[in-house]
Amino acid sequence: MPRIRETDIPYHSELPTGPLNALTDIPGIAVGHATLIAGEGEWTGDGPYRTGVTVILPHTDNLYAEKVPAAVHAINGYGKAAGFEQIREIGTIETPIALTATLNVPRVADALITLAIEANPYIGLGFKDERRGYPTVNPVVGEISDGYLSDIQSRPIGLKEVRAAVENARGGPMEEGSIGGGTGASCFGWKGGIGTASRRLPQRAGGFTVGALVQTNYGRPEQLVIAGVPIGRHLRPPNYRPRREGGSVMIVLATDAPLESRQLERLCRRATFGLARSGSICHGVSGDFVIAFSTAYRVLDQPAELITTRPAFYLQPVMDLFSLAVIEAVEEAIYNSMLMATTTIGRDGHTRHALPVDEVVRLMQQYGRTGRD
Amino acid sequence: MPRIRETDIPYHSELPTGPLNALTDIPGIAVGHATLIAGEGEWTGDGPYRTGVTVILPHTDNLYAEKVPAAVHAINGYGKAAGFEQIREIGTIETPIALTATLNVPRVADALITLAIEANPYIGLGFKDERRGYPTVNPVVGEISDGYLSDIQSRPIGLKEVRAAVENARGGPMEEGSIGGGTGASCFGWKGGIGTASRRLPQRAGGFTVGALVQTNYGRPEQLVIAGVPIGRHLRPPNYRPRREGGSVMIVLATDAPLESRQLERLCRRATFGLARSGSICHGVSGDFVIAFSTAYRVLDQPAELITTRPAFYLQPVMDLFSLAVIEAVEEAIYNSMLMATTTIGRDGHTRHALPVDEVVRLMQQYGRTGRD
Amino acid sequence: MPRIRETDIPYHSELPTGPLNALTDIPGIAVGHATLIAGEGEWTGDGPYRTGVTVILPHTDNLYAEKVPAAVHAINGYGKAAGFEQIREIGTIETPIALTATLNVPRVADALITLAIEANPYIGLGFKDERRGYPTVNPVVGEISDGYLSDIQSRPIGLKEVRAAVENARGGPMEEGSIGGGTGASCFGWKGGIGTASRRLPQRAGGFTVGALVQTNYGRPEQLVIAGVPIGRHLRPPNYRPRREGGSVMIVLATDAPLESRQLERLCRRATFGLARSGSICHGVSGDFVIAFSTAYRVLDQPAELITTRPAFYLQPVMDLFSLAVIEAVEEAIYNSMLMATTTIGRDGHTRHALPVDEVVRLMQQYGRTGRD
Amino acid sequence: MPRIRETDIPYHSELPTGPLNALTDIPGIAVGHATLIAGEGEWTGDGPYRTGVTVILPHTDNLYAEKVPAAVHAINGYGKAAGFEQIREIGTIETPIALTATLNVPRVADALITLAIEANPYIGLGFKDERRGYPTVNPVVGEISDGYLSDIQSRPIGLKEVRAAVENARGGPMEEGSIGGGTGASCFGWKGGIGTASRRLPQRAGGFTVGALVQTNYGRPEQLVIAGVPIGRHLRPPNYRPRREGGSVMIVLATDAPLESRQLERLCRRATFGLARSGSICHGVSGDFVIAFSTAYRVLDQPAELITTRPAFYLQPVMDLFSLAVIEAVEEAIYNSMLMATTTIGRDGHTRHALPVDEVVRLMQQYGRTGRD
Repeated sequence: MPRIRETDIPYHSELPTGPLNALTDIPGIAVGHATLIAGEGEWTGDGPYRTGVTVILPHTDNLYAEKVPAAVHAINGYGKAAGFEQIREIGTIETPIALTATLNVPRVADALITLAIEANPYIGLGFKDERRGYPTVNPVVGEISDGYLSDIQSRPIGLKEVRAAVENARGGPMEEGSIGGGTGASCFGWKGGIGTASRRLPQRAGGFTVGALVQTNYGRPEQLVIAGVPIGRHLRPPNYRPRREGGSVMIVLATDAPLESRQLERLCRRATFGLARSGSICHGVSGDFVIAFSTAYRVLDQPAELITTRPAFYLQPVMDLFSLAVIEAVEEAIYNSMLMATTTIGRDGHTRHALPVDEVVRLMQQYGRTGRD
Repeated sequence: MPRIRETDIPYHSELPTGPLNALTDIPGIAVGHATLIAGEGEWTGDGPYRTGVTVILPHTDNLYAEKVPAAVHAINGYGKAAGFEQIREIGTIETPIALTATLNVPRVADALITLAIEANPYIGLGFKDERRGYPTVNPVVGEISDGYLSDIQSRPIGLKEVRAAVENARGGPMEEGSIGGGTGASCFGWKGGIGTASRRLPQRAGGFTVGALVQTNYGRPEQLVIAGVPIGRHLRPPNYRPRREGGSVMIVLATDAPLESRQLERLCRRATFGLARSGSICHGVSGDFVIAFSTAYRVLDQPAELITTRPAFYLQPVMDLFSLAVIEAVEEAIYNSMLMATTTIGRDGHTRHALPVDEVVRLMQQYGRTGRD
Repeated sequence: MPRIRETDIPYHSELPTGPLNALTDIPGIAVGHATLIAGEGEWTGDGPYRTGVTVILPHTDNLYAEKVPAAVHAINGYGKAAGFEQIREIGTIETPIALTATLNVPRVADALITLAIEANPYIGLGFKDERRGYPTVNPVVGEISDGYLSDIQSRPIGLKEVRAAVENARGGPMEEGSIGGGTGASCFGWKGGIGTASRRLPQRAGGFTVGALVQTNYGRPEQLVIAGVPIGRHLRPPNYRPRREGGSVMIVLATDAPLESRQLERLCRRATFGLARSGSICHGVSGDFVIAFSTAYRVLDQPAELITTRPAFYLQPVMDLFSLAVIEAVEEAIYNSMLMATTTIGRDGHTRHALPVDEVVRLMQQYGRTGRD
Repeated sequence: MPRIRETDIPYHSELPTGPLNALTDIPGIAVGHATLIAGEGEWTGDGPYRTGVTVILPHTDNLYAEKVPAAVHAINGYGKAAGFEQIREIGTIETPIALTATLNVPRVADALITLAIEANPYIGLGFKDERRGYPTVNPVVGEISDGYLSDIQSRPIGLKEVRAAVENARGGPMEEGSIGGGTGASCFGWKGGIGTASRRLPQRAGGFTVGALVQTNYGRPEQLVIAGVPIGRHLRPPNYRPRREGGSVMIVLATDAPLESRQLERLCRRATFGLARSGSICHGVSGDFVIAFSTAYRVLDQPAELITTRPAFYLQPVMDLFSLAVIEAVEEAIYNSMLMATTTIGRDGHTRHALPVDEVVRLMQQYGRTGRD
């Protein structure tokens, strides 16, 4: 279970990574997981489960009180993500971002509401001060369908799991692969999961960092492309049988550059190019969504003053570099999500195999990729 | 509790209504409510409750198997409506539309998933036939904040209530006012709730019907306008004190005209003009959303053939008439939602008074409205 | 030709106006017109003309070098406005905003390009410095169809007229009515044109100003509403015959509040409520667009530094007040556009009468509006 | 100047092409060009010119009278495309689609208006029949900046050139490369231009055809990817010096499948994945737009009846195949646009070299691409 840069797969990137090559290279961000692996064999109506939830905290202070600028984008809107309408209108995120299984979205959203109320007991009860605060909360949840491996109908992820994920969220090195919201994920017919990567902008673009975290659950084996090499044309999972099911990919972007919501929305749209590099054809039943936020400033729920000064960034002159950072980070995060995932046997004996690194390396060599480019 | 046309408030409309002057004038649509009124006095953390859920069924067959063309629009996206991303991508609705309280959205969405699985047990388990069906379901939920009257934090509306609302859904004359999702609603400082109205298009526009159902929970007393008369400048609720809280209005439109999703989306955007006629200023904390669907044809989950012929409608030559129908139906539905609502005492003694019809009539007369225009 | 506040029409507004009650209450904005009135009688294929162009300059420095934050919104996209794609992507305006006749949009856009090149000779030729500037320019043009009164096919407005409008643009009191881009406008079957109004926010909302300028060319006589009174039900233009033709309304909003593009876009969407107050039903063939900009800061084409600090504004806590300011300013600007317009006889003897103020006052009195509310 | 399938570059596609592998595989579509090559040496303010216009006619009948269903999408909105607002609202195209140089958009749009009036003399003059027709026309123009090679400031393309392009438009085999709107295009630092390709859907997806036509003018040499091979890492144009200038790519999609506007819009968004395959990073100054239309039915300007029946297509069950067709056609069209282009020396001695096929083949071999995959 190596990350792509730890394998012999030659992987070229134009921009350098951050120290961890992870979303958590951006100071203040914490990521946590709750993983539910339970039961074996036939579907019972209460398992077997190969599922979970991953949470991303833009910071570990009170997010409701100190929101972060944010944006969303639907690459393919065939999905059930929660909380997007308000982000489009207001441009902020005020809860952790949770990634889970499709049918579990409402229960996870409900759990985020409970946690927000615990931290902000006035939610729903209102204020005296007319100018301040809004006693309502907008949970943000993304999803992929893990129904091939897990009993998705039973929706087992609730408050307990979400609370655990939030409580164990931390910065620093991140776990990847078959964990949290990626536990039951399938990608290109192989095991998918959670992956991450980051890019450092050069000083002439401010020296900022862009990070990506993905939850990968899309594509068919024949479509898989790694670093331009059509791996999927040559390598198929054992006993693979094509099968219709809901796919999806969730992409979370973050930066410490002081971007406003509209600028973040531009980054979201560029993530599509990173997804495409992996061979995705944006298949029809896949909810492919992007969420981006900045940690550079906070939008207070109850500002003392209406007018403030904040850092602003001329993005347009260096938009190419930010585009490149987004695209490369998304692409590499996808590869990491697959390479770090482990073979998983789920409900009804359904199996998703880990992508065999040795086979990939061998194919890369056939394609002239014989060492770091 | 009369509807506006049953009062002495002169109300002019350019287009005629349907026989019931209700969303249910469109054949096949069923509307149901579950109302929760429980407890009195101080907020306990488990009540008092003045809340509920209203469901709109485009038809009473299996909605998942036979979806309807649909569209959505955010007038003001500061809200937590569920299911909009997929409607934007695919242009169909596949569950009942539920209207409830803000923080209750996830639990109601979760209940809709349960009901969809009960009717379609393969959801989440997948298909053998590659070309058919997608084992996932997209619940559609709208919301208003009833937190002034009800313990919104506790989220008491769940599967039991949603099931009851769906089971009692029917066509024919509709209940309005303080019922279902409108039980705890406040509108212009008065009691709001559920309202409906319809308009019949002339034969030269196909003779179709456009219906509106609204869940009204927005505005301050001073802004209320009825039929152009600034009622709110003269009439205030007893003991009214301005107070910051989450508002919202949900507008559901339906028609039997064979419109496609894009055309329905145009209707959605025209609803704004009906909302404006009531004096709304689209206040900042209000999630104002529109959902529209057509009953004229169905989009099968598992079509036997990919190519079909279906009725199509040249909307553009008669767009003015459809605009007018939408605007008038929305405006009148709003008035009905208030006039049919009853004075409600909720948590902590909070009270929303029913709009006093006699006072409104008296003010209308001062403004020269002395009989049907 | 009085403005509404100079007539005996009682007009109530909740917010105070700026000193001029005009877009030009916002310091730095300049407005200019070129009016073309030529020929009489039958359409010749070269006239008669009742047309022109109005330009709004966010400031009178080099707009290309110092852009302003901006946003656009389509209330009804049935129109030919130019320049909107780039505003949506980049959030800035870099030329004057020109308002003209539908078929004349390309020639006016072409003229704006010529003027931009004159002031910035490097446009199209490129830069050496990689990080700076983009040698292309995005002209912004809105339009209404003045084809009922003017020979719109011949497209007589070109560089000469646009240059004249820009050169005579100034701040201070503004001309309104049948001038510039409003010369040939029809509104509710009466003479329409250019109108303006402004609102001053209270100190608790920063004391900023919101201004509106409109170019009105929509609606049928029976729909006209003034201050809630259904004037159109009682008052028709002499010899009016319903007739199908392209309508449209262009709404330009400005503020000195330091709003970013996304916040300005929210203002744009609220303009719909002001338009609705005038009786508009958003008729099908009408291109109804909104453009908003802020004068509070500038976005440099060639910034010396990528990171800057700039004023930022917590709009959400006072969004209601900004909404109200936008809605009221748009509504009043519409009335001014009609009241300030003069009876115009155009091509083929087509006539648009000025709205008769005395008749309106008389009708207002019938509706109990007997003096300032 | 071979197309990619005529070279020794191994190019793999999953779906078969149409007989011509061109947009014109869809019956009824006609494509025409006007090319302006004039002058040499230094920029004079009137040349040298390496520019032109390409027009795509969805059919060769009266497009204004018989519109086609259509959609648009901005991959990167930093561009000046004309006519998009109305396509978004109404979902139809009613003029030829013209592709030209950035600053020339208004003059080309103006020429399209002239041609529409010639064919429909009532445009701008109006109708008697209330229910029919709208006397206004919406020209659709896309653009790329050819300012590196051509005197873009002088905007030499007008009515004469547009008329010539329309008159010489025809179906059948298409010219590609340095022609029409692609005459002065640069792509990845090499010569770009016009390219095309098509894909045939299998019978289980209806047997329809999807075609793409591109006008390519984006990217830097180091980013060029062909069929997954990072050509740009190894191959640079002679004397290449990085230089800031406006890029852009226009993508036109067409199909004979009976898709409605919303479904076409979904195809537009998938084009992004084809663009990404070529190595594009969606660079910041590039206006990257997609326009799609269907030839399967027509939307009459003056329909005899409002209700009709028309073919409809269940796209969703075979969306993957349409996605793949779009992506592959766009990718191959891009390669064709470069391979068919010829080395061009433009203003001030600026030179864009044709991509050297032999070098590309050699590099492909180094990357294990030794024959048709």
